Amino acid sequence: MTAKTERIFRDAFAKAGIEVNGNRTWDIQVHDARFYDRVLASGTLGFGESYMDGWWDAERVDELIAKILSGNLEQKVGINPAVIWHYLRARIINLQKRHAFEVGERHYDIGNDLYAAMLGERLVYSCGYWNNATTLDEAQEAKLDLVCRKIGLEKGQHILDIGSGWGSFLRFAAERYDASGTGLTVSRAQKAYADEHRRGLPIETLLQDYHEHEGAYDHVISIGMFEHVGYKNYRSYMEKVHALLKRDGYFLLHTIGGNKSTYGTDPWIEKYIFPNGLVPSIEQIGRAAGDLFSMEDWHNFGPDYDTTLMAWFSNFDTNWDSVKSSYDDRFYRMWKYYLLSSAASFRVRNLQLWQIVFTKVGARERYTAVR
Amino acid sequence: MTAKTERIFRDAFAKAGIEVNGNRTWDIQVHDARFYDRVLASGTLGFGESYMDGWWDAERVDELIAKILSGNLEQKVGINPAVIWHYLRARIINLQKRHAFEVGERHYDIGNDLYAAMLGERLVYSCGYWNNATTLDEAQEAKLDLVCRKIGLEKGQHILDIGSGWGSFLRFAAERYDASGTGLTVSRAQKAYADEHRRGLPIETLLQDYHEHEGAYDHVISIGMFEHVGYKNYRSYMEKVHALLKRDGYFLLHTIGGNKSTYGTDPWIEKYIFPNGLVPSIEQIGRAAGDLFSMEDWHNFGPDYDTTLMAWFSNFDTNWDSVKSSYDDRFYRMWKYYLLSSAASFRVRNLQLWQIVFTKVGARERYTAVR
Repeated sequence: MTAKTERIFRDAFAKAGIEVNGNRTWDIQVHDARFYDRVLASGTLGFGESYMDGWWDAERVDELIAKILSGNLEQKVGINPAVIWHYLRARIINLQKRHAFEVGERHYDIGNDLYAAMLGERLVYSCGYWNNATTLDEAQEAKLDLVCRKIGLEKGQHILDIGSGWGSFLRFAAERYDASGTGLTVSRAQKAYADEHRRGLPIETLLQDYHEHEGAYDHVISIGMFEHVGYKNYRSYMEKVHALLKRDGYFLLHTIGGNKSTYGTDPWIEKYIFPNGLVPSIEQIGRAAGDLFSMEDWHNFGPDYDTTLMAWFSNFDTNWDSVKSSYDDRFYRMWKYYLLSSAASFRVRNLQLWQIVFTKVGARERYTAVR
Repeated sequence: MTAKTERIFRDAFAKAGIEVNGNRTWDIQVHDARFYDRVLASGTLGFGESYMDGWWDAERVDELIAKILSGNLEQKVGINPAVIWHYLRARIINLQKRHAFEVGERHYDIGNDLYAAMLGERLVYSCGYWNNATTLDEAQEAKLDLVCRKIGLEKGQHILDIGSGWGSFLRFAAERYDASGTGLTVSRAQKAYADEHRRGLPIETLLQDYHEHEGAYDHVISIGMFEHVGYKNYRSYMEKVHALLKRDGYFLLHTIGGNKSTYGTDPWIEKYIFPNGLVPSIEQIGRAAGDLFSMEDWHNFGPDYDTTLMAWFSNFDTNWDSVKSSYDDRFYRMWKYYLLSSAASFRVRNLQLWQIVFTKVGARERYTAVR
């Protein structure tokens, strides 16, 4: 059985330009022959888990996975590393939740250390903008500034940030544009961090679900949060944003996107992913925004997420020694796989990164997009 | 009956800030009391036809209709002038078809005179780009140049133009960028004009349906033609473009868009509009492009169509004396209503103008949008 399975995999890999135990950077090194049966039995999940267990490796995991994705090995041997994004992201988010709600000081501190080591100065956990940037910190500042410029942010305006993370955007907007802001997060750890680093700026962070929030804002922005809304809630999300936005305000949505609509019906997504966690499509966003908003500008800089993720991995790898006492080798491999497989998905354009500017229908006369 | 109907209309108009026989530029002047019953009986169609018959007027028909649209009078008294766009556009297209296929020289020449008078130097029958333009001719050149810059057009590249009209885009691309091109049109009159004005440039115009065309192009563009494809054909349209485009090429789609998906099930659309003529939504385009294309950039400059249409009306009105011997007063009013009601629809953001840049999935690394 194993020999036959191995032949199937070797053939499929060969068609995608990958040699088992070959000597190129993207060739897969199979260290444990049980690999083949495991992947055959449990597909993508088995592929990722067997990497975490050290059953296979590659000098350039990202390049290997890019070749797997380009070669459509999903159809041939059931491997679709793009889905790993959901799986690992969900595990990471669950870890964050544990940090937050068990108030485990040790985990909490370690978590922030890990993120600080990986994400750079401003602790921004979303795609940077590499148009003119040469470093991760520059790319993240450029992204934050891009959002401010796209909404035409003016002094004194009040912004709502749905999914405000560690508060990076609102601090930037208050520092650079003299704006004020309210951030919403469901993470106690993120709120605590944002409160501690408020620096006297006119910003507040609320531990609150966006559906429960009330108010009227000059602009609403949401960076890297829509991926967790779920397709069943897209319409009510848009309705809520519409209700929270003043008539002439801008709504900027920054989200990962997929080329096709998916609905999370895959059984292992049901098992491992928190409900409704999903990468949206153009179709789904278009339907949800419908008659509420005029879509003024839809900017795709997906390839910049490849660059961002590779920079995160480089930081993580470089700083591993300083945080590894709190983790095990399997965690290192999980995290590496998460970052590099995600980078590959953006590289082959299976995933996109969108910034969309919306106005209320009838509200504005002419929008001039910036880049 | 009429008195009661009139009261309903007066009340509805008043709520939208319009006074019947009032003295502001947007107030409706009702010249024939049968107007109310006619509109009540046949809605939008009756509203437009009764204008053509001279039963009502306004100093600023565009402003009146903008107020009707903003006031949602459709729900109150059944008037939705946005739909007139379809109706009149279809009639105009049918006129063009007659011109083309009956080879009526008189109509043909007159038709071109009318368009030449209205559309400006380059005879471009689509939305101009008014970002830095101050005249219609500048706006049309800016639009043609914008398309060339968005697809990164280089010397010697071969472009397919689906729905090439009078050949304006390909002439511009050949003159300014040393490109070559093939245009497809279903209008014999347009092909004849394009052939006559080829000026020795490496461009050809084929009288052919896009579905029947074969080839492999560096880039594919389509300006103001997708509105006639029909939602049932969106997917096969995208598949055909995908097949006609080289791996690293760009597909630029320039189309009018609507905020919501519609499917042309209204009975009078069925009666008067050629089958499948339809303004697409984001949802519909997203679904059709799906896994075929990465959507790199989606640019909305809908308000520029308001400006373009007002410029067309100004040209038409100014030049009416020189062409009117071939038409009647009802034609003048139909044309005026078509241009001004369409301008109003773009002004209140019921209609949008989109330029979308697509690449084949996996084909490109990073797209930098221009404006």
